[in-house]
Amino acid sequence: MNIAEPLLAAIEEFNKFPGIGRKTAQRLALFLLKRNEHEVKNFVNSILDLKSKLHFCGDCFNLATEDKCEVCLSPKRDRSIICVVEEVSDVISIEKSNEFNGLYHVLGGVLNPLSGVHQDDLKIKELIKRASNGETKELILAVNPDTEGETTSLYIAKNVKHLGIKVTRIARGIPIGGDLEFADEATVGRAVLGRIEI
Amino acid sequence: MNIAEPLLAAIEEFNKFPGIGRKTAQRLALFLLKRNEHEVKNFVNSILDLKSKLHFCGDCFNLATEDKCEVCLSPKRDRSIICVVEEVSDVISIEKSNEFNGLYHVLGGVLNPLSGVHQDDLKIKELIKRASNGETKELILAVNPDTEGETTSLYIAKNVKHLGIKVTRIARGIPIGGDLEFADEATVGRAVLGRIEI
Repeated sequence: MNIAEPLLAAIEEFNKFPGIGRKTAQRLALFLLKRNEHEVKNFVNSILDLKSKLHFCGDCFNLATEDKCEVCLSPKRDRSIICVVEEVSDVISIEKSNEFNGLYHVLGGVLNPLSGVHQDDLKIKELIKRASNGETKELILAVNPDTEGETTSLYIAKNVKHLGIKVTRIARGIPIGGDLEFADEATVGRAVLGRIEI
Repeated sequence: MNIAEPLLAAIEEFNKFPGIGRKTAQRLALFLLKRNEHEVKNFVNSILDLKSKLHFCGDCFNLATEDKCEVCLSPKRDRSIICVVEEVSDVISIEKSNEFNGLYHVLGGVLNPLSGVHQDDLKIKELIKRASNGETKELILAVNPDTEGETTSLYIAKNVKHLGIKVTRIARGIPIGGDLEFADEATVGRAVLGRIEI
């Protein structure tokens, strides 16, 4: 096929992103071609900055520009509650909700022996160490409600039990704006079990 | 919100792409963060190459790494037929079909006075000049079948009429794998009018 090699190479690179198929990859590459030198340079620099300026917080493994992340450095956060999440993107989701003022702990995934993810591949040891610092009073497990998430939650709960701190997990139920009619039975069941008094 | 600045900047840059919303932009930026130095460098280089190694073919305005594009340079192509398209992506679509062996002419858009696109903004003058070189026998108008496309087709047809060359346009009809029941009336109508003997 007579497609110029540099375009093909760029399409292939975009195609490597999750959820970006070949057609979308082509659209993105052609869009870049239409942008001016300055705009493309800005885009490239933002990507290079991602890798050079960001690393993981030494305490919670969230993204950080310093040794510690902005959440861990903030004097306004409640240091007695740690919210345990799978990925950095989950920190962003919870921060956006404006409903949590404690600290985070990013595991970097969930236990999944079939895919070869064991406890030592995740930041579980580090979490247990943090939880035993005497300052921590509650651990909120905010991993995704799937099989691997459940397993990981139970594993963590079992391993921090001896510390005598409260371990909670985020509520499962009907999403806001959702419809009982279209929710699956498991979700409806959990919503009923997790009912609260108003 | 406590999101590290370099990540926010990258998300904003991805958000500028067509069809990439804020959530997808975040997913793409976080994916890059997970890739290693070498992979990110490859991605960045492919983008820089796009801008530095590609320019427009002097004849047909397709993408080219040399002065002329691979189609125009190929000795195997039929130089008597020119297929007129809106964008570079249309050249790729037609090349993929393997059904065309002539040359192309990329207009760079369609006439759209309301959006301020007039004949001088497109490569129409250059097309008419090419069509009058004595070698051209047929002009295939392969612009999209919408109002602007129709207007552009008619404008070009009118302006090359005096050259006495054949002007055709690609067929409209039911797409392969499509269903008569779900096709709109205009398409079905065109399919009936454009019937061919088998």
